[in-house]
Amino acid sequence: MFRKLVSLDEAKRILEQNFSPKPVGVERVSLSKAHNRVLAEDILSPTDVPPFSRSTVDGYAVRAADTFGADEDRPVALKLCGSIRVGEAPGVTVKKNATAEIVTGAPLPRGADAVVMLEYVDHKGDTVLMHRAVSRGENVMEAGSDIHEGAVALKRGQTLSSREVGVLAALGLTKVGAYKKPRVAVISTGAEIVEPGKPLTPGKIYDINAHALSAAVTECGGEPVSCGIVPDEKGRLKATLREALDSADVIVSSGGVSVGPTDVVPKVLNELGEPGVIVCGIAVKPGKPTTIAIVNGKPVFSLPGHPTSSLLMFHLLVRPLILSMAGRQEETPVTAKAVASAKMFPARGRRTFVMVSLARDKSGRLLASPVALGLSGAITTLAGADGFVEVEESRQFIKDGEEVTVRLFKPVSVIS
Amino acid sequence: MFRKLVSLDEAKRILEQNFSPKPVGVERVSLSKAHNRVLAEDILSPTDVPPFSRSTVDGYAVRAADTFGADEDRPVALKLCGSIRVGEAPGVTVKKNATAEIVTGAPLPRGADAVVMLEYVDHKGDTVLMHRAVSRGENVMEAGSDIHEGAVALKRGQTLSSREVGVLAALGLTKVGAYKKPRVAVISTGAEIVEPGKPLTPGKIYDINAHALSAAVTECGGEPVSCGIVPDEKGRLKATLREALDSADVIVSSGGVSVGPTDVVPKVLNELGEPGVIVCGIAVKPGKPTTIAIVNGKPVFSLPGHPTSSLLMFHLLVRPLILSMAGRQEETPVTAKAVASAKMFPARGRRTFVMVSLARDKSGRLLASPVALGLSGAITTLAGADGFVEVEESRQFIKDGEEVTVRLFKPVSVIS
Repeated sequence: MFRKLVSLDEAKRILEQNFSPKPVGVERVSLSKAHNRVLAEDILSPTDVPPFSRSTVDGYAVRAADTFGADEDRPVALKLCGSIRVGEAPGVTVKKNATAEIVTGAPLPRGADAVVMLEYVDHKGDTVLMHRAVSRGENVMEAGSDIHEGAVALKRGQTLSSREVGVLAALGLTKVGAYKKPRVAVISTGAEIVEPGKPLTPGKIYDINAHALSAAVTECGGEPVSCGIVPDEKGRLKATLREALDSADVIVSSGGVSVGPTDVVPKVLNELGEPGVIVCGIAVKPGKPTTIAIVNGKPVFSLPGHPTSSLLMFHLLVRPLILSMAGRQEETPVTAKAVASAKMFPARGRRTFVMVSLARDKSGRLLASPVALGLSGAITTLAGADGFVEVEESRQFIKDGEEVTVRLFKPVSVIS
Repeated sequence: MFRKLVSLDEAKRILEQNFSPKPVGVERVSLSKAHNRVLAEDILSPTDVPPFSRSTVDGYAVRAADTFGADEDRPVALKLCGSIRVGEAPGVTVKKNATAEIVTGAPLPRGADAVVMLEYVDHKGDTVLMHRAVSRGENVMEAGSDIHEGAVALKRGQTLSSREVGVLAALGLTKVGAYKKPRVAVISTGAEIVEPGKPLTPGKIYDINAHALSAAVTECGGEPVSCGIVPDEKGRLKATLREALDSADVIVSSGGVSVGPTDVVPKVLNELGEPGVIVCGIAVKPGKPTTIAIVNGKPVFSLPGHPTSSLLMFHLLVRPLILSMAGRQEETPVTAKAVASAKMFPARGRRTFVMVSLARDKSGRLLASPVALGLSGAITTLAGADGFVEVEESRQFIKDGEEVTVRLFKPVSVIS
């Protein structure tokens, strides 16, 4: 099959023109499963929070006006008319020159509009001496002061961390509309690929990509759907891709895309539906054989078989798309400034991604050292890297000692 | 109960003296569930990766020495002796002045030590013309060059991201030893607390803390164990705490610790076992009533009932402990430099945490604005905050316009 390499930016542009990632649907999830999901609806508060005015201290509920002028030396005497407990409707109304005992969190009784703290009060029989004046609303959390009934408490698109889960609970909600996780079919191709756990006969290697890519799908909010290992054989591959297109929102395969006599993935993709293959080879290193197709309105990414290449291309092309389809905001890449510890070359005419590990030298400078440069087949290249340096195709080289921006796989605590 | 406030640093020191957080155990997890778990063992490679020397290109397997001197104009002629397919043991041995067709990923046949790429070869019947010389090992990924048999492929304590999951798959492993998730019992106390979904009778509010704290436990690698809502009543509370101590590694309760007539948590904790309460009140705002106990060797955190206070104290005291017990490395807090948009005061003698939201002003400066200062009962205070500013107890105040360090709840993409 004829391959016309396009640049990475061009590949992204072609993908954008042919596919607009949108959330794939909405489902109701229970409060206990809502953590880390993305809200698919604005949450309007069905109630005031708190639902009633509450005392924020232990003390005495009063009409603030009754305490005017009270101080340490000249207390105001009020008549005790009852006691308010937590979790119950107040049984009393506080009338003029009266007061009721109250504890933190208990509802303010009718008539009262403030609370005098315990430490400013002398209690003698039915008479309570207030040694301090309070103003209206003092030591009271008003009904609805946290969230008003009908107010937008949380917005569509918010990811539910522990704090937002707290807001949902405050509203008494047990179910919430969340974006469905996009289903991502993961297919490994190649006659040499064997599932871990099975015996390795001569010429076989274990399937790395299905497991690494499935975990990568989970990391960006998708739901991996395992479609197993298929040989580079047209009929089997076509059947598997057809099944995957029926059951998933995005298809990611790996292997079977090098320019070899047994490469069938691009051919099969063109046969499955229009427009078929839209990108067939990208001018990047590693990752050149990456193929992108749209079939029946669904994106299919055919990534290289080499683990480092396939995970890198997933990171650059597939992850942003899955994030959008999961309703998640685009990420700001986490980067670190470092000093190149070796010369870094771009492959001729191709944007090159150099996997680097980070460490501080004696003088405290952060050094970016290439990991096993060029071994894109090695999974350890990737596992040993903290991130990568992007070398523009137009650059001649990056000098040893030059400052580089390292895009981190995750915030690295050892470097701080 | 008498409360002697200690500083936050002193509280941490006392906790450290009385409890050394250690991983709570090891369990075997399957490869498909290993993502985001923490390795409890060094992983020694049971095999070479790759298990055999593989061609990294499509081309012809040769003895490198046979190609010496070959170039565009003076090709070397070798005799075709066979074809090597992917996933099978090579059926041929490459003898002197012979060559075998090979594809990417196929095992190098005996005798051969390099591969000439397809594009430098003319194939005419049984004769293959090599237009380029190769050196030993060229275009070959040697057996074990990624990971040697017996080498440490991954280390104890590593968190398994997609990249490390790929390494496990490469080794053919289907099970791996991971640290058990510490079980964290979550208890809500208070006669006014009602489970979301139930009707709110007068004086009742929904249980925010159990849900927010359970999600927070998940966020740091623990497994929340819901122990429900108990009233501030000694017998019930004691029974629930006893059950929690039997079934969990850490106990987190909220509510019932203000200095009020119905506060029973600290008393019950002292009755349950030695040494009982070790910290009874911390000089922080919010979070002052926070109580820490050790009972039967297990830490019990009794946090305030106010959602912002309890989540903040969880963040500062409980989260680091759960991370350690989950075998996870201590985190570097994510911070941002910003300019205070308002004066911030510490509460007298107490370290004060001011919840702030971040936004850029017209000139591009990042502003930290206090969120609903003082309303520690409000869940929206927390949900509306991007992080917090720590005001030292010794500070008089932070000036409007002063630079502050904001500890972020998560990296905030809107600010970049």
